[in-house]
This record gives sequence, C-alpha cells and structure tokens, in this order.
Amino acid sequence: MEKSTLKIYNSLKREKELFQPLNPPYVGLYVCGPTVYSDVHLGNVRANLTFDVVFRYLTHLGYKVRYVRNITDVGHLVGDLDEGEDKIAKKARLENLEPMEIVQRYTNGFHDVMQIYNILPPSIEPTATGHIIEQIEMVQRIIENGYAYESNGSVYFDVPKYNEKHPYGQLSGRKVDELLSGTRENLEGSSEKQSPLDFAIWKKADKGHIMRWNSPWGLGFPGWHLECSVMSTKYLGLTFDIHGGGMDLLFPHHECEIAQSVAADGQEPVKYWMHNNMLTVNGTKMSKSLGNSFLPHELIAGDHDLLEKGFSAMTTRFFMLMSHYASTLDFSNDALMAAEKGFQRLMNANKLLEKLTYDGDDNNYDLSQTKEIDDLLDQAFEHMNDDFGTPQCIARLFDLSKKINSYYEKQLSINDLNSQTFNRLKETFPKIIFDILGLKDESSGNDNGAMDGLMELILNIRKDARDKKDWDTSDKIRNVLNTLNIVVKDGKEGTNWTIN
Amino acid sequence: MEKSTLKIYNSLKREKELFQPLNPPYVGLYVCGPTVYSDVHLGNVRANLTFDVVFRYLTHLGYKVRYVRNITDVGHLVGDLDEGEDKIAKKARLENLEPMEIVQRYTNGFHDVMQIYNILPPSIEPTATGHIIEQIEMVQRIIENGYAYESNGSVYFDVPKYNEKHPYGQLSGRKVDELLSGTRENLEGSSEKQSPLDFAIWKKADKGHIMRWNSPWGLGFPGWHLECSVMSTKYLGLTFDIHGGGMDLLFPHHECEIAQSVAADGQEPVKYWMHNNMLTVNGTKMSKSLGNSFLPHELIAGDHDLLEKGFSAMTTRFFMLMSHYASTLDFSNDALMAAEKGFQRLMNANKLLEKLTYDGDDNNYDLSQTKEIDDLLDQAFEHMNDDFGTPQCIARLFDLSKKINSYYEKQLSINDLNSQTFNRLKETFPKIIFDILGLKDESSGNDNGAMDGLMELILNIRKDARDKKDWDTSDKIRNVLNTLNIVVKDGKEGTNWTIN
Repeated sequence: MEKSTLKIYNSLKREKELFQPLNPPYVGLYVCGPTVYSDVHLGNVRANLTFDVVFRYLTHLGYKVRYVRNITDVGHLVGDLDEGEDKIAKKARLENLEPMEIVQRYTNGFHDVMQIYNILPPSIEPTATGHIIEQIEMVQRIIENGYAYESNGSVYFDVPKYNEKHPYGQLSGRKVDELLSGTRENLEGSSEKQSPLDFAIWKKADKGHIMRWNSPWGLGFPGWHLECSVMSTKYLGLTFDIHGGGMDLLFPHHECEIAQSVAADGQEPVKYWMHNNMLTVNGTKMSKSLGNSFLPHELIAGDHDLLEKGFSAMTTRFFMLMSHYASTLDFSNDALMAAEKGFQRLMNANKLLEKLTYDGDDNNYDLSQTKEIDDLLDQAFEHMNDDFGTPQCIARLFDLSKKINSYYEKQLSINDLNSQTFNRLKETFPKIIFDILGLKDESSGNDNGAMDGLMELILNIRKDARDKKDWDTSDKIRNVLNTLNIVVKDGKEGTNWTIN
Repeated sequence: MEKSTLKIYNSLKREKELFQPLNPPYVGLYVCGPTVYSDVHLGNVRANLTFDVVFRYLTHLGYKVRYVRNITDVGHLVGDLDEGEDKIAKKARLENLEPMEIVQRYTNGFHDVMQIYNILPPSIEPTATGHIIEQIEMVQRIIENGYAYESNGSVYFDVPKYNEKHPYGQLSGRKVDELLSGTRENLEGSSEKQSPLDFAIWKKADKGHIMRWNSPWGLGFPGWHLECSVMSTKYLGLTFDIHGGGMDLLFPHHECEIAQSVAADGQEPVKYWMHNNMLTVNGTKMSKSLGNSFLPHELIAGDHDLLEKGFSAMTTRFFMLMSHYASTLDFSNDALMAAEKGFQRLMNANKLLEKLTYDGDDNNYDLSQTKEIDDLLDQAFEHMNDDFGTPQCIARLFDLSKKINSYYEKQLSINDLNSQTFNRLKETFPKIIFDILGLKDESSGNDNGAMDGLMELILNIRKDARDKKDWDTSDKIRNVLNTLNIVVKDGKEGTNWTIN
C-alpha cells in the first residue's frame, strides 16, 4: 500500500509525481557528494541527510536501492566555473601536501561527520580520479556525436549546437537566448570557447598542475560536470530513477549532466530530479563570508557567537527533519533549543513505550482509542509518502507521544487498545524514529546501556536517600552529577537525564 | 638522538641496518592493503598494526611520514596467480551485486576494524581502479624496454629476459633455475606464457568480466602485482624508503614489484623492505580451512570454540605488541587472558601516575631511584630503536608500572625523584603507551569520562554503605553492577572496574 502512493516532487516537471521506478523492485539513486578539499559544512550535512531519509524510506518500502554518492577529488575549480585553480590542488599547494593527501584527509573527515549524524554509507562511493578512462571515453562519444570541440588542448561542450536539437535549460527553466544576453562579457576572458555558454568537459593541464592524465587531447583533467554523468550511468544505467543534490547544483551542474548524457548516449539520464533547499541563520543566508556559518563540530561544542550552548548531532538531525527538505532551513539558537526539547520528548515516549506491556482485553477495548492510534500511525506514513514529509510525520509522532505518556501514567497497563493496535504501536513507533528518520537515542549511546543502568541505580539511591532524609548522600550525588554535566529532570513522565 | 640510532631489519639485505631516509625529514612508507572482497581477518589486523606502530614511531622521532596504503579493488585473482576469477567479481557474482558494491561494503568494514583497533588512517589510500591509466602506462614502458610481451590480449612480464640483466629473486633468495624446475608442469595450463615464471601485468577480460577497461591490447584489467608498483612510486617517488607487508606477500608479490619497477623505470623501488610474520593458534598455522581462524568480531565477542571469553580490541592490540612483528604470533585463550591482565596493569599504573603530583625536594632526592627511572625510560626507547622491539619496550613499561604503584602507595607524595625525572616519567610513560604503541584506555572510552565519574560515585556510595553496615544499599549496587557486567576489583592498587 505504502509503496504505490509515494509521491516525489520532480524538479524537472515542477510537480509532484507518483513514484514509479523504472525496474522495480530495484531503485537507482545518485547523489552529488562532496568536493573533498575542506571541512564538511552544515549544508553538506543537510543534503546528505535529505537523501539518507530518501534511501531509508525507499528501503523501508521494500525497494532494493542501489545508492551511489560520489567523491569529487579532481576537476572542481575554484569559483565552480571553467577558469581558476583546482580546489584540491590549491589546498594542497597552500598546505604543502600531495593533492591525494588532501583528498584522504577530507574524505576521512566527511565520513566521520556522516557517522556522527547517523547518515548511512551509500552502496557505492566512486571517485572522479577512479573514472578517468570512462570520462575520456564519454568526451570522445560527445565529440563523435558533434556536440563538443577541441580547443587548445581542452574540450568544450557546444551548448548552442546541442540546443538546436535538445532543449538546454529544461531543468532550470532557463533559455539559451536569455543566458547568452546575461553572459556576453565573460567570453572575452576565455577565448577558447565558441560561445560563453559552452563548458569544459576536458581541461588542458597548465604547467605545474599535478593532477593530470594523458588523453587524446594531451595532458589534462576532466571537467567537473562530467564525472557525475559518467559515474551515475556506469553504476545505475543510462537512465536511472532518482538524482539528488542541493538546489545550488541545479544550474549549471545538473543541467550540464543532462546535456552530457543526451549528447553522448542519446538518453535522458534521470526520471526524478530532487533538490534540497539551502540553510539560513536567523533569516539570512548562511555563508562563510557573512560570518554566520558554523561547522558541525562548532555546533556540537556550542563554539560560536550565535549559539548559547552546544547541540548534539541527533538534536541537529531532528531539527533538520522538522523542516521539509525543499524549504529553506533556518538555524537559530531558539529553534535548536526547541528541537532539543522535542527530541527529548520523543526519546522519553519511546523509553516509556518499551516498558509498556499489554494488559488489556481483546474483547473489551476502547474502539475510538484504537482507531485514533491507528489513524495517527497511518497518517505518519501518509506524510512520508507525500514527498518525504518529515515535519508532518514528526507532528504525528508527537501526538502519539502524548498518548504513550498517558498510557504509561496508568501504571503500565492499558485496556484502551486491542492487542493488534498495541503491538503495531510498539513496533512502528520506534521503527519510524530509528529506522526511517535515522535518529539515535544518545543517552544510551554507550556500551550495553551501562550508562543508563548506572544512572538508574544512582537515581534510585538518591530517591532512597531522600526518603530516609539522608541529605549527605543525596547532596553528594547532586554534586557529582553537576561535575559530570549530567542534568536530571523530574517530570510528569518520570525522571530523565541528559549529558550537557 | 633517538633518530640516529633506529635500526630496521631489511628483508632485502637480511640484516638490521641503520635507518637513513633518502630525503630527511621526509619518509615514504608504502604498505600493501587489503583486497576488499571479504571480512578483515586477524592476519590483516596484525599487518596493519605492525606498520601503524612503524608510522607512529617514525612520526614520534620527528620524521614527516607520507604513509600510503592501497585498497585492492580489482585484479587480485582467486589463488593469487594468473588464472581464475577476480576475487571481487566472484564475490559480486555470488551475492548478485555490482562489484563496486562489494568493494564499498568491505572497504567500510576494513575501516571500521582499523578504527576499533586504533590503527591510524594512512596519508593516502589509493585504489587500483583509481590508477588504471597509470598502470596501462607502466605496462607500455615495460614493453618498450623489452621486458614484457603481448599474448592473446594479455601482457606478460618476461622473467627470464629480465633475469639476464637483473637478479630476479633477490628479495626472496630464489633463483630462476630452481624456480623453473619446480614449476615446469604449470606451463601447460597457460600456453600464453613463454615461461612458467612469467606473470601477467595486463589480463584480457573474458566474456562477462564486468571490471574491465579499454587498453592498447583490448578490453582488460591490470595484473595484481602492478598496482602496488604504480601507486607506491606515483606518490612516493621512483625510489622510496620503506615498503611493508605480510611475509606471505614477499614472494611472488613483492619480488614482482621490484622487477616491474626496474624494468619500467630502471630503478630499485625500495630501500628498506619490512615483513611481518604470520599468526598461529595453539601452535598451528591459523587458516580458514583448519577451522582455527577467528574474525575480529568473534574474538571481541568470545564467539569461538577456542575462546573462553571475549577479548577487547585493546587487549588484542596489546597482545599482538607483546610479540615482535617478525616472529610468529600464537593465539591461545591463556595467552590472551595473560595479555588482558598485563594491559589492565599498565592502564592502572597510568591512572595512578595521572594522580601523582610532585611533592619532593630537588635538593634532596634519591640519586639511584632517579637513575633507575631514567634508565628504564631510555631502555624503552632503545628497544623501539632496535627494529621496533615492542615486547622489550612493554617489559620496561611493566618495570615502570611497579615503580609507579610503589610511589602511589606512599600517599601521592614522593621524594625519591628529582622534579626533572618525575616530569619526564609523567610525560613519557603515557606517550609511549598511547601515542607510540597506540593503546587506548577502554574504561574511559565514553563521553567526557562520565562513566568513570559515575562509577567513582557508586563505589564511593558502596564504601559508605558498607561502613554504615547498610547492606541493602551495598547489595543493590552489587546486583546492578552484575546485571551491567561491570566487574569491580579491590586490589592493592585501589579499586578498579571493567565492563566485560
């Protein structure tokens, strides 16, 4: 049921479409990964988190997903255009390292951050340098088909020529004429190009350029847009299901991918294009130059002027999921504080749910209660089926949390629900939280839940001490917990603790 | 001082040599990494651990080490010879996956295991598929120089021809004549070769072979030995300092690497060859077919007939370091039990040392005590300088642990040492344990030492309860700790705990 009703907003069609994979139960998913020349920023985290949830949800629906996410380790130039230094080579020059040492360092850093945010590794993680031959061969096919030309050792894609037969700009909604009038001046700086809209698919290596390979056009390296066309179609077929990436990549990067594939192989490469939106901070675009951007570790440590405290990776993950991927996501201290509380509320409810056992009567239960729970669970999935509507799905989880809390207060026994719905709740609630939304209970992140067990023991001893008016012991406990930054909260839903 | 006296056993010379890098302070280190088609076994762990300590110690000595460790993701055939299926392609066929999905899965698994054993990532981790062009070019150079020939779409290295001018077998101490008499029969199965000693540097891809690339000799893939020659010299220069690997790789793999480099570029590629020895179990060679091998996770979980219990990653790391890398290493339950105790002793001593503060008198201290500590520290480094003598180094750490325990028993104050030696001890003891030997204190592996803090609180409460004969509380604590598998030991050196 769930499978047949998933709808995805397709950037190419500018509308939500029923998701119908080309070759079910297989689904091919390609996402543009990082250029590994600097620390991962929160924009990267959001993009990867978006498609992590897509990957998880499609898997939940029973699809066999081959998820390909590349690593760009060559060819991405400073300024994202056809002139300038390679981003990785530049960093290597500045740090006096071999470019592949830069690649290794920041690939490791990227993997570490992905792990912290509980973002699953893809099925295949190909690199641009690992596919030079295939890229050269794609350039050759494009030349053979008449859509590219060599110029002074570089090869450029001929956009006007392509546009005669195929609509260039269909993804971004741009027209060649308008693009031309906007970019007339740029041509002067790059006389190798016949048109300012043309883009490099192979670049001649300047003197001193370390990352370069022999090709039919001399020593050089592939253009940035090319690698994704090559690697997506190599591993997923000439036309595949879903291509994802940040909205900033829609033009020119993804537009060029379409043109390259059509020019080389005569096929539109992608059925569904998905784009996640950007980050803002207190309503302003997040950017390094504005000084309002922070890195994941700064967010976790609270090491930034705009943050009053640190926020854990799972709080941040939860916070990001509270906005739809296609909306901008606004970071602010207050919004993070609210997300932290909400996340804790969910974790609490789940812990209480774990403790609940069925003590009802299948011949005598509350029909409307049962229907309410079933409806909330159904709705949670309906929201996910509506273009991965995580905010609405989470809202239903909050509704369910309230119900769970009320059941728990009735002393671990319930006769409101029938056993079928009770069991469904017990199974589905954590499945949505942990498997589909990919959250983790950080308070039990240690080995075998030993921390949980010790805290339960200590809180127990503290309660005994208070009952016995043994203030010495209860003070001692309070002081140690303070020192360890462990915050204990006594609430309606029982006693909870977190490490700050 | 330490720098100038490091000696390394060079397999090529069959003797210990003073280590004199080609281009100090830079050191190039290349180690053969895994073929990523199956779970990492303990032999892999030992090899990588061996060179992790080499990497750490060279770095400690002040060298700037570029450490390259490859990932073999194509070209390694079942049986390690020139016939048979590609190991990764075979696994992909069996599991009905794309070969690069196999590569991704087992590369991730390899990285996870490395992290568990606290084995540092290399500076560069190149892949065979990432260097196809460079491999084709090396084959071309070898052909041009007359040391290889094409045969039916494959290219073979001409060992007899090479041996006319260069000694083939110098690393392994084998002679071409003897090798020939031992392998005469094998030629029949492989009529493409002119001599049975010849080995493939490029293999024609059979029908249905997925991992293949265009080359001057048609569709094919590189021979297994070739990638290491290409990637080591690409990133470390035509001749570099140290090449490491397991003793099982010495022949033919490393022998072929030398021949390929000399044939292609006219230079011996490596100054120091290092080989770690193999694993045995209760005196018998560890092997899958004998059923006496276990995987890292089986060792950690104790999930094997030969093991009475699980042993943590750090216990195993410590255990491995208690044998010299060039000796066989015998696994047995008893030896692991002993290593576990030894490791704990070291961790204890370090915790006590952390608590020690200097309360002595620099004008009035025990000269012989001071000399003893300085000598032990000097010796620890001298052992490391003697071909990375970790077992003897650890023996000195045990001697030092005894001294530390005795200082601690004197109530945190000492007047045996002068402040210089005391400070040296406080700085150097943990440096050897953590930075050089790469051990980690697993009992404090959790966030902010919160577990440590909670356990200290609980043990404190338990002591109070016992003093007050409050058996209720002390029983409750004992029961909870049992449930959590936390073992508390009261000993001479204070109370300790571990999670089993």
